[in-house]
Amino acid sequence: MGNVLGRILRLSTFGESHGPAVGCIIDGLPSGLPVVVADIQRDLDRRRPGQNKLTTQRKEADEIEILSGVFQGCATGTPLAMLVRNTDQRSGDYTEMEKLYRPSHADLAYDLKYGFRDHRGGGRSSVRESIARVAAGALAKRLLFEVAGTRVLAWVESVETVDARVDPETVTEEAIEASLVRCPDPDASKAMEAAILRARGDGDSVGGVVRLRITQPPVGIGEPVFDRLEAELAKAMLSIPATKGFEIGSGFAGSRLRGSVHNDPLAVRDGQPFLTKNDSGGVQGGISVGAPIDARIAFKPTATIASPQNTLDQDYNEAVLAARGRHDPCVVARAVPIVEAMAALVLADAYLLQRARGGLFPAPDPEESS
Amino acid sequence: MGNVLGRILRLSTFGESHGPAVGCIIDGLPSGLPVVVADIQRDLDRRRPGQNKLTTQRKEADEIEILSGVFQGCATGTPLAMLVRNTDQRSGDYTEMEKLYRPSHADLAYDLKYGFRDHRGGGRSSVRESIARVAAGALAKRLLFEVAGTRVLAWVESVETVDARVDPETVTEEAIEASLVRCPDPDASKAMEAAILRARGDGDSVGGVVRLRITQPPVGIGEPVFDRLEAELAKAMLSIPATKGFEIGSGFAGSRLRGSVHNDPLAVRDGQPFLTKNDSGGVQGGISVGAPIDARIAFKPTATIASPQNTLDQDYNEAVLAARGRHDPCVVARAVPIVEAMAALVLADAYLLQRARGGLFPAPDPEESS
Amino acid sequence: MGNVLGRILRLSTFGESHGPAVGCIIDGLPSGLPVVVADIQRDLDRRRPGQNKLTTQRKEADEIEILSGVFQGCATGTPLAMLVRNTDQRSGDYTEMEKLYRPSHADLAYDLKYGFRDHRGGGRSSVRESIARVAAGALAKRLLFEVAGTRVLAWVESVETVDARVDPETVTEEAIEASLVRCPDPDASKAMEAAILRARGDGDSVGGVVRLRITQPPVGIGEPVFDRLEAELAKAMLSIPATKGFEIGSGFAGSRLRGSVHNDPLAVRDGQPFLTKNDSGGVQGGISVGAPIDARIAFKPTATIASPQNTLDQDYNEAVLAARGRHDPCVVARAVPIVEAMAALVLADAYLLQRARGGLFPAPDPEESS
Amino acid sequence: MGNVLGRILRLSTFGESHGPAVGCIIDGLPSGLPVVVADIQRDLDRRRPGQNKLTTQRKEADEIEILSGVFQGCATGTPLAMLVRNTDQRSGDYTEMEKLYRPSHADLAYDLKYGFRDHRGGGRSSVRESIARVAAGALAKRLLFEVAGTRVLAWVESVETVDARVDPETVTEEAIEASLVRCPDPDASKAMEAAILRARGDGDSVGGVVRLRITQPPVGIGEPVFDRLEAELAKAMLSIPATKGFEIGSGFAGSRLRGSVHNDPLAVRDGQPFLTKNDSGGVQGGISVGAPIDARIAFKPTATIASPQNTLDQDYNEAVLAARGRHDPCVVARAVPIVEAMAALVLADAYLLQRARGGLFPAPDPEESS
Repeated sequence: MGNVLGRILRLSTFGESHGPAVGCIIDGLPSGLPVVVADIQRDLDRRRPGQNKLTTQRKEADEIEILSGVFQGCATGTPLAMLVRNTDQRSGDYTEMEKLYRPSHADLAYDLKYGFRDHRGGGRSSVRESIARVAAGALAKRLLFEVAGTRVLAWVESVETVDARVDPETVTEEAIEASLVRCPDPDASKAMEAAILRARGDGDSVGGVVRLRITQPPVGIGEPVFDRLEAELAKAMLSIPATKGFEIGSGFAGSRLRGSVHNDPLAVRDGQPFLTKNDSGGVQGGISVGAPIDARIAFKPTATIASPQNTLDQDYNEAVLAARGRHDPCVVARAVPIVEAMAALVLADAYLLQRARGGLFPAPDPEESS
Repeated sequence: MGNVLGRILRLSTFGESHGPAVGCIIDGLPSGLPVVVADIQRDLDRRRPGQNKLTTQRKEADEIEILSGVFQGCATGTPLAMLVRNTDQRSGDYTEMEKLYRPSHADLAYDLKYGFRDHRGGGRSSVRESIARVAAGALAKRLLFEVAGTRVLAWVESVETVDARVDPETVTEEAIEASLVRCPDPDASKAMEAAILRARGDGDSVGGVVRLRITQPPVGIGEPVFDRLEAELAKAMLSIPATKGFEIGSGFAGSRLRGSVHNDPLAVRDGQPFLTKNDSGGVQGGISVGAPIDARIAFKPTATIASPQNTLDQDYNEAVLAARGRHDPCVVARAVPIVEAMAALVLADAYLLQRARGGLFPAPDPEESS
Repeated sequence: MGNVLGRILRLSTFGESHGPAVGCIIDGLPSGLPVVVADIQRDLDRRRPGQNKLTTQRKEADEIEILSGVFQGCATGTPLAMLVRNTDQRSGDYTEMEKLYRPSHADLAYDLKYGFRDHRGGGRSSVRESIARVAAGALAKRLLFEVAGTRVLAWVESVETVDARVDPETVTEEAIEASLVRCPDPDASKAMEAAILRARGDGDSVGGVVRLRITQPPVGIGEPVFDRLEAELAKAMLSIPATKGFEIGSGFAGSRLRGSVHNDPLAVRDGQPFLTKNDSGGVQGGISVGAPIDARIAFKPTATIASPQNTLDQDYNEAVLAARGRHDPCVVARAVPIVEAMAALVLADAYLLQRARGGLFPAPDPEESS
Repeated sequence: MGNVLGRILRLSTFGESHGPAVGCIIDGLPSGLPVVVADIQRDLDRRRPGQNKLTTQRKEADEIEILSGVFQGCATGTPLAMLVRNTDQRSGDYTEMEKLYRPSHADLAYDLKYGFRDHRGGGRSSVRESIARVAAGALAKRLLFEVAGTRVLAWVESVETVDARVDPETVTEEAIEASLVRCPDPDASKAMEAAILRARGDGDSVGGVVRLRITQPPVGIGEPVFDRLEAELAKAMLSIPATKGFEIGSGFAGSRLRGSVHNDPLAVRDGQPFLTKNDSGGVQGGISVGAPIDARIAFKPTATIASPQNTLDQDYNEAVLAARGRHDPCVVARAVPIVEAMAALVLADAYLLQRARGGLFPAPDPEESS
């Protein structure tokens, strides 16, 4: 249970860190959608471990293989399955974690839930599972761009106590990718890098915040009352390992304002309504209104650290754990493509749902019905 | 679409502010669960408009009628339908909103999505819809209490810039309900009350934060990877009108910490593992581990205010709106039972899901399988 | 669980025979769909008990009340809830069935599943539950007619051993409704009537077969591999109480043929492909191809009969039951609108699903992609 | 859409006939369930093409690879992915079908729905897709056997006009597997074999009926009103390619009987209620009551035949097709493991669903509540 996402565009994922492979089936793609392996591989490479000095040194090519659902370069409308083989598995690194629970990791939780677990590399709770999300997300991004010119962009806004200063409206993909931590503020980027390396040096880890910004989203998507667009986004983001919070638009800061300040006045541009500011974060009443969708996601510091911690073994004896193995001292840089993927999957699904019903009948004539 | 919540315990809701009634069907209740109308009515009364000077003065008894699914005082296991008739509808108050969009409300969004809308009292986007949630939530609360002794408690933590100072571990329902704003800190409560009345006096509104705390949750519930418990909670909370953010455990503040500080060390109590502190917010790897579930939800200031605002009419002509009608200057006090209800529905559903598979087979013997 | 039908157009039903009411919520209707109460009431009247001498004499007006989701005569796109109050409940008739299980009825099954049951009038297993289906089905019929000119027609093809002889292509609604048993062959209709009255006179009951024929169905609907159109229809039909079988097109008889005889040759008419005969029953590969959808549904004889039968009481003591109460000696005439409703709901849902993805991208150019 | 089956035990399948691979993800398996590759391979071998002279001569080893979800020989409770590589693909055989629609096949339907299709070997509409069903079904069979001693058995009851005569209660797996057509009546088996070879010799094909019998099913499973057990079975069976009908218990023949004959009297055996006969087919009110589940599924003759047929090309020009390629002249023998698999998946899912809610609360005391 729990490994299927979406209603029209349905993603089903599988895979453990040290099993043969990770992958997914994505069902519900519209037939004719161009499927370009390079699009997928590019996002996988952004997620890949070992991409630079700030990440875990596990070496994985993470090469994608498409198994079905594509013909003549396009989605056929049938399920598209994708696979990445696991290659660089050093299970030996995890032997001690077979018996010791890592504090604030999923180890204890999995044992409580399932009775036992594949402890090798964190098994299913490993961030390696996100490969499937990123691969599927690349297709969702393409779909959104084709139908509405939508761009899904994420970047790192803070690491530990270092905050970026950027104008969200001018951030470019190039500026993001030019930074090892995926922060488009070069000064902050350097300081974040230093914070991460300092933490690693201390056998420790740091957290951070990822900013999500989606321009030109399809209008009118999101399904009140339970499947509001921000609700689906919140769920998708909180399903990413290590996340602790989600804000849209003004977020928690907005809760301290008055309505007269917070409300976004309406005006007209090119004959269309637009928000003269965007504390709504692009969503009103659970529905996209055309303004950029703007959200923030909090990531806690990586749970697996080299410093000694008080914990238990699986027989509930007290113990001390100093984790070995190759771990990211900070996950946010690699989380950027995962955030983008989840956002794209949510929006593409909501877009297709809206398409199911939208524009079928004209509005009633109020004169006539009264 | 979008009005069905849950997988085992499935809630389907209906109703507009000024239609004949609001209500719901809740399917998937275990047979034999005691159904006590007074439990339901009590939570509805906490949500009711007109309950005190801080809320809208719309007068509604909000009396619940159960239409099915109960026999001999217990759930039969078949769908339980509930109904509340709308009685105090002054559609005249809304005549001007028929043509003018309230900034940051759902008016424009509904027109963009559906082509037209029932504008009377906000129609489906009215908070009146939450009656169905609260009624169903009362049953979910009872279910959780019966099976695990779980208590679901929420309170107001801040209003505008007034923050409560309380020890979450000692907050009682009595202390919460003794306050008009449902804030268990008496001093803060007074200050919040003043802030709300001041805003109303100014033709304005204020936002706030609701704290959620669930003690003795069932252990091992939540379904990775997409239906993690915090992900389902985040979605449920962000599906409540006027919400802008969700945090669990350390939340955004946790993103600024180091792992050695953030990780929750494990120890043993009464033979069971427990967290010596709870930055996890009761959830690890998407699964409850027994510690209290602890979350915060941000509410923006009410969108409908009496002060004049720049907006558009439905033909996209610029206009100025000064809303009449009876509106809450702050929603958080009435949101408390809604937050509790949504949390209870999410946990009860996750509990039943876990029950479907849990404890069916013993763990394999590692010796044998190697 | 199990009381929600559909994926886009989602029907959620509730109600027991002797509870306060039966009804439903239908979510996912396209906004702007005309909602005409008379359409709904007309089908309810065709389903109603006591409509003539062949049915149970329970008197129910079965008057529909719409509670939400309609404004200015049209669906708003939000959930539409409907209600029928139960009025003529003689629970006394069922006192003996409180303790004795009716053979081949749901009594024992409900006790095995739920531990107890609302025994009054069969509770949830009463055919009274189908009111919700019929009411929702009337809206689905309208939707299909508006978008594709689709007509959903059902009639009685056999009762006990009496078979109708009709040309399916010329059967009209008028001919069906002119017959008390809803059989458009007047001679067979008389014989069926006699068979039913004979059975009732004997304290017995009879079964029969209902034919379903849908002309001008939307093309290209149905979702392989699991949600093929015939699979969804089969499920919907077998969800009607008392059904024992479903056939589409050639059905069981087709299993005795050779491919050269069974295959439906293709030709062109008005520039469109058509089947020169229709053993496919309008569906190929799980997808509608434009030919009429043609199916048959088998109904067993009513389980509740006046003749004495060997059975058990709820303590598993052997007993003899001769049921009192007002029961239909044959259900097929009243089943006709239920079959139509279920078929319409399935097709409308499949139509909306197809609309979500269909026609979004052009087919790839084979030259280019090779 | 449409490629996900089940609610708790969720199967997601992928794969085309001539793509790289076919396979599936099965999510929702209880942790600790023994996963034995040989169990899976055995059923795949029964489904395999080229297993004897009666089937297509396509040579495929159909060797299963498990990619995730298993540790120490048991299901971990996380998604279990499986893969079979396609090896013997002779796309040349299908060149003519690229442009010509096979009558009564899925070719035209897929083009109508998706705008284009992977024509090689029937693409997704190939029976090769059923590999995923059979592999997953083997796990569901094991689950049912472990929890309730359930046995799922299917066999061929008729081919063309040849009917088997067997006592369903004494049919054994050995007797079924001893027959090339999987008919446990040796005389009928020979006659069926002859009928199939005769049809192939004539460039033709034949249909048949498969009987399904499930002994010792879990009691109390099935979810009224829409997800009744027979409804789910009907859907699952009609989702198998080439099926045209489904009957449970007395089926269509039962529609010709009277209630006094059709009803199954109740008696007691070993302190438990049992049906003294089984026209119910093991299901009452949509719920299993412990008696064997007994059903029949009609398969039409294979659509692809060597004899010339009138058809169209994809530009809607009239044409004549005489199909080349390696096709089964009759599908029923290979359909037997597919029917078993689908039945097992439906029952296992229903069992887990029932487990979610069943036995949680005692029945109310009628004395007290009155």
